[in-house]
Amino acid sequence: MSLEKVADFLKQNDNYEILTHAYPDGDTLGSGYALCLALQQLGKNARVITTNLPKDFEFLLNGVKQQSFDARTVVSVDIASEQLLGCNRERYSGRIDLCVDHHAINRIEAPLKHVEADAAANCEILYRLFRLMNIDITKQIADCLYTGVSTDTGCFRYTNTTADTLRIAADLLELGADNVFINKVMFETKTKKKIALEREIYDTIEYCCADRCAIISVTREMKNKLGVGDDELEGLASIPRQIEGVMVGITMRERDEGGFKVSVRSDSHVNAAEFCARFGGGGHAAAAGCTVKGSLEEAKARLIAEIGDFI
Amino acid sequence: MSLEKVADFLKQNDNYEILTHAYPDGDTLGSGYALCLALQQLGKNARVITTNLPKDFEFLLNGVKQQSFDARTVVSVDIASEQLLGCNRERYSGRIDLCVDHHAINRIEAPLKHVEADAAANCEILYRLFRLMNIDITKQIADCLYTGVSTDTGCFRYTNTTADTLRIAADLLELGADNVFINKVMFETKTKKKIALEREIYDTIEYCCADRCAIISVTREMKNKLGVGDDELEGLASIPRQIEGVMVGITMRERDEGGFKVSVRSDSHVNAAEFCARFGGGGHAAAAGCTVKGSLEEAKARLIAEIGDFI
Repeated sequence: MSLEKVADFLKQNDNYEILTHAYPDGDTLGSGYALCLALQQLGKNARVITTNLPKDFEFLLNGVKQQSFDARTVVSVDIASEQLLGCNRERYSGRIDLCVDHHAINRIEAPLKHVEADAAANCEILYRLFRLMNIDITKQIADCLYTGVSTDTGCFRYTNTTADTLRIAADLLELGADNVFINKVMFETKTKKKIALEREIYDTIEYCCADRCAIISVTREMKNKLGVGDDELEGLASIPRQIEGVMVGITMRERDEGGFKVSVRSDSHVNAAEFCARFGGGGHAAAAGCTVKGSLEEAKARLIAEIGDFI
Repeated sequence: MSLEKVADFLKQNDNYEILTHAYPDGDTLGSGYALCLALQQLGKNARVITTNLPKDFEFLLNGVKQQSFDARTVVSVDIASEQLLGCNRERYSGRIDLCVDHHAINRIEAPLKHVEADAAANCEILYRLFRLMNIDITKQIADCLYTGVSTDTGCFRYTNTTADTLRIAADLLELGADNVFINKVMFETKTKKKIALEREIYDTIEYCCADRCAIISVTREMKNKLGVGDDELEGLASIPRQIEGVMVGITMRERDEGGFKVSVRSDSHVNAAEFCARFGGGGHAAAAGCTVKGSLEEAKARLIAEIGDFI
């Protein structure tokens, strides 16, 4: 459906619950809180539903009103499939009224869907939507949108970055987005623990497919030894992909409940989303994810067994 | 002098030598080759003078004609002082006709100077200059300018990034700049040796000023042991500054001729250029450099003795 119809739908309804995906990132949270602020500006009731809010993202709550209401309209932002709802899946399964997303493969079943696969970030779509709706893009909304646009492009480094992306970011800066603060928190700050973790991770690098695939792994044992939390694990996925000659970088993070959360980053020769789909996951051609069961060695062997088909 | 006068000067003269600074980075080289291409497009003779050209930057030579002529006009780009000419200093000292730069403290003595301290990159100034001169900004010129704009802003992460910076980058993408290739080479590729080096460097981190200053160091011994060249040392300066709570990050690289090349990165509370000026160096408020003589321990002690005044 067109962006105009999304705008009409949002104006006509009320009492919104906005769903974000599990293991939340800047784009799903930025989308969620930006949309919440915009709807509240229109006099609507709205809240954001998350699985958790990492402390680095708490600034996104600035200006968001806590409202008490019975939910009637459910909107998902930046969510490619119901599986990605995590602990909220059971509650919201089959209940999504409107899905706004930018993933090429979107499996959400909803009566209203707006998916733009060529948008670098879901927040790009929301920026255009808010313009269309004549929303006053306040500093708080600009901060949310800039967070999404910048994090989903690795601060404009990734291949998904377009001239549109950069122009939207320019507009957001002029609207008051605090890029100095947001870039510092998102891209320029490492805890001492994270540095210790990276040092350990360098020792786990394993290559396959004639060095065109590199795999790193973080086990629960490593996390416990170094005392690092999930917040410190963000951004690791860029490490293996950056190694010279590597076409696919795979990052394995052991989950508390067992098995591994797998992040795949690839260059234009390898479709990460299709690879992850083999394990029930999804994402973009250059950045995708899935979960794989088993011990480290078992899970790694399963990944290695499949990756050869894609290189 | 105004950009209009720079344009007039460039149109009126010929046989250009364009000077870049020693330890060349993307902004000085991007500026140099972009200007060379623009002048050749106007039918002028032009060549770029460098101390060296790291292999990652060789793509900037695309489309540059090798011309034989007697030099008559000397232009410096992105050079804050003659000291930064390195091995070309003796030859060109006092001979610069036009200086185009974006450093707040510029000590070049030249009859014609155009300095814009609020430009994130010198290539931003050249973009506006080329527009003014009706230069056809070809893909090759756009590649050069994008290289300068992106590298001097850490791919739009650093605090110097403005809405103008992002809009110029957007224009350059539309003019054909290959941001996918350039970002990959400049920001997204690490050799295996570089990863080994980073691992070693993590062991050299030293803190002072109640952990508000962090210092890392690379000695010739480390370089020899790991077999890394100067190309692999680029980008290290961001490591100490990124550590949580650190206001000033100092990176010391031992020079082949003895002593240390020092790179300083700071947050808005500390003026890196003023600190480096104490050692005869210079740069920007957030990113500056200098050289310090002596052994590792001596040089480090000299830096630590002064830094307290700035924190």
